[in-house]
Amino acid sequence: MQQVTPAPVTKLIDEFSRLPGIGPKTASRLTFYLLRHSADRALTLAQALKELHEKVLFCSTCFNIAESDPCPVCSDEYRDRSVICVVEEPLDVLAIERTREYHGLYHVLHGKISPVEGIGPEELKIAELVERVNTSEVEVREIIVATNPNLEGEATAMYISRQFAGGQLKLTRLARGLPVGGDLEYADEITLSRALSGRSEM
Amino acid sequence: MQQVTPAPVTKLIDEFSRLPGIGPKTASRLTFYLLRHSADRALTLAQALKELHEKVLFCSTCFNIAESDPCPVCSDEYRDRSVICVVEEPLDVLAIERTREYHGLYHVLHGKISPVEGIGPEELKIAELVERVNTSEVEVREIIVATNPNLEGEATAMYISRQFAGGQLKLTRLARGLPVGGDLEYADEITLSRALSGRSEM
Repeated sequence: MQQVTPAPVTKLIDEFSRLPGIGPKTASRLTFYLLRHSADRALTLAQALKELHEKVLFCSTCFNIAESDPCPVCSDEYRDRSVICVVEEPLDVLAIERTREYHGLYHVLHGKISPVEGIGPEELKIAELVERVNTSEVEVREIIVATNPNLEGEATAMYISRQFAGGQLKLTRLARGLPVGGDLEYADEITLSRALSGRSEM
Repeated sequence: MQQVTPAPVTKLIDEFSRLPGIGPKTASRLTFYLLRHSADRALTLAQALKELHEKVLFCSTCFNIAESDPCPVCSDEYRDRSVICVVEEPLDVLAIERTREYHGLYHVLHGKISPVEGIGPEELKIAELVERVNTSEVEVREIIVATNPNLEGEATAMYISRQFAGGQLKLTRLARGLPVGGDLEYADEITLSRALSGRSEM
């Protein structure tokens, strides 16, 4: 069999395949798509990839991704500095900002405690959170622990709450219950029992 | 709401989203995946994209993608120059090479006749095929029209066969029938009727 695929094509297929959720078929479809289109398309994508790590840094206060340090949220004087919302990933900050309901600060852990993946608390920005709360100019009243509502997220939340045990600080967790627009009939029993125990007066 | 996503991140998400079959969710998953990993990962992909159009060209004989002109297949003296297999896309060449059963040459049309998409025969490398056959040093005995077994592929095959009508040239089409490993019970009626009419003696 001849080597009928040029090396640069094979290389790009390989590189696409290394991305999560992209198999060899999708990788080769993307590569041939770019090959059919003008070089500009591929070059714009290449440029965007090049600038990703060049121009994006982590805020040294909240560890969210940003183009400046401190990030726009941490340097915004209209934000409530007495509340910190702790999330696992930068994408979670985005999700909460979209609600337009939260006006405090954030703290991005960059992961969750996961013994299976060998990720302990020291891999996360938890020590930095404790340090940040202790040295904050404005007293921190509340920490909203907004880790994901799953096993690892709960374990991480528990660990964080232990770091602040015995202090004046209020620690809260996002409400668990039925998703808006969801159907009671299809809710799993854990979500439903959480919704029951967390019921509120009408 | 604050601009919490840095512009380079948004830009890469946008660029990924422009690829076929990649929606905004997948695009942002890929972007944040690359952000979590070292800059090397993103840069290797960027480099591969940059080299795609730089290093890949089209063979001026068969119009397959290659790093050299003529391509390795066209310049291979052990190939049977009297047979040309006509395919729609470079990926089809790859599929046929994988069978290790074909030892002739190829001709890549770069598309199919598709009135819906406004693609006529003049957009494809059909005139080039006629010219190639007429001026070939070794006489071309057979053209295997291996366009896809669907409406556009059949229309393209018909058009090509008309270009060579009345000549000595043998025009063939790949066999249609039940896919190997397939199940008769689940075959559609058109495939099954093709399999019936094309039945061979045991």
